[in-house]
Amino acid sequence: MKIYGDHRSGNCYKLELLCALLDLDYEWQTVDIMRGDTRTPDFLARNPNAKVPLLELDDGRCLAESNAILLFLAEGSRLVPTEPFSRARMLQWLFFEQYSHEPYIAVARFIALYLGLPEERRADYLSKQAGGYNALDVMETQLQSSPYLVADEPSLADIALYAYTHVAADGGFELTGYPAITAWLRRIESLPGYQPMKA
Amino acid sequence: MKIYGDHRSGNCYKLELLCALLDLDYEWQTVDIMRGDTRTPDFLARNPNAKVPLLELDDGRCLAESNAILLFLAEGSRLVPTEPFSRARMLQWLFFEQYSHEPYIAVARFIALYLGLPEERRADYLSKQAGGYNALDVMETQLQSSPYLVADEPSLADIALYAYTHVAADGGFELTGYPAITAWLRRIESLPGYQPMKA
Repeated sequence: MKIYGDHRSGNCYKLELLCALLDLDYEWQTVDIMRGDTRTPDFLARNPNAKVPLLELDDGRCLAESNAILLFLAEGSRLVPTEPFSRARMLQWLFFEQYSHEPYIAVARFIALYLGLPEERRADYLSKQAGGYNALDVMETQLQSSPYLVADEPSLADIALYAYTHVAADGGFELTGYPAITAWLRRIESLPGYQPMKA
Repeated sequence: MKIYGDHRSGNCYKLELLCALLDLDYEWQTVDIMRGDTRTPDFLARNPNAKVPLLELDDGRCLAESNAILLFLAEGSRLVPTEPFSRARMLQWLFFEQYSHEPYIAVARFIALYLGLPEERRADYLSKQAGGYNALDVMETQLQSSPYLVADEPSLADIALYAYTHVAADGGFELTGYPAITAWLRRIESLPGYQPMKA
């Protein structure tokens, strides 16, 4: 299988981290979103939504959406709970990540890191702060009562939310007020097979 | 089980439609987000992210995120493919819905329908148009080649994306240029058990 991605993207890093933890082999194809690589006819044929990461199977079928790819690759592994309600809570966090966390923390980071925080995006960047801290508050509440987001064992919820939380400072988010999140970050970093972000 | 929701919300309507199609019984508790009902201590104890819909099981456990609730309630039904790649494609559409569709089409609708399109939100409202049409373009591309989003049978992907697509006009989106989407809307409305939005 091949993963089309960008090492600086947290959404892509989720897949790199999952593959490291589960020891899955893959070919990596770098896609430079700033150069328009996701807008070529070739790429659009693979993903009409023009986003990375994208998974391409050996038979050519393609799958988009980082969290859908995580679920596809990890099904049956120790990172996906089999008990139905735990599984549902894991899914809850995956949707939370894409709706209530990524659009604030990852987008603020994108504006700062990829675009260099130009003056005309400063208002947009600042508008992401409240939502990002709200997402961190929700995570902190959970992590005060359990070592991982879904109770006692790491799951895909932790991988998905680790990706942008551990680089939240790039988007201007300060984690000093979040001791449970900080301890959880270290817990993930000590999982066997853990691999840091390459960018 | 009890669903906390708002009949005007497409995210809540997804659950009403699913329960109608699968003939599931539930108690409904109306939550008025405009009145601050999701910010009470009681509600925040159930969902620290302060959003509807929320599912409460008879034993008191709660689950948030509309698409996670869909997956929890429909697992094992005809609306969830068992073949792994079809299942993954369904999940791809569920994440697409929350990241690339809802934040444009539902948010534009919210500004127009709930807030009455006040002058100070007009720029925000207009900024949602391009993203919303992009999402519709992606759906149209798929629906030109298959009757439902995941091939030949309806799945949760169709329920999730029907919810706000069929009321996209409320957010200023014109569907006349989308014949495949329009035919798909009619296809869903003729499914046995279909129930229209109550609001």
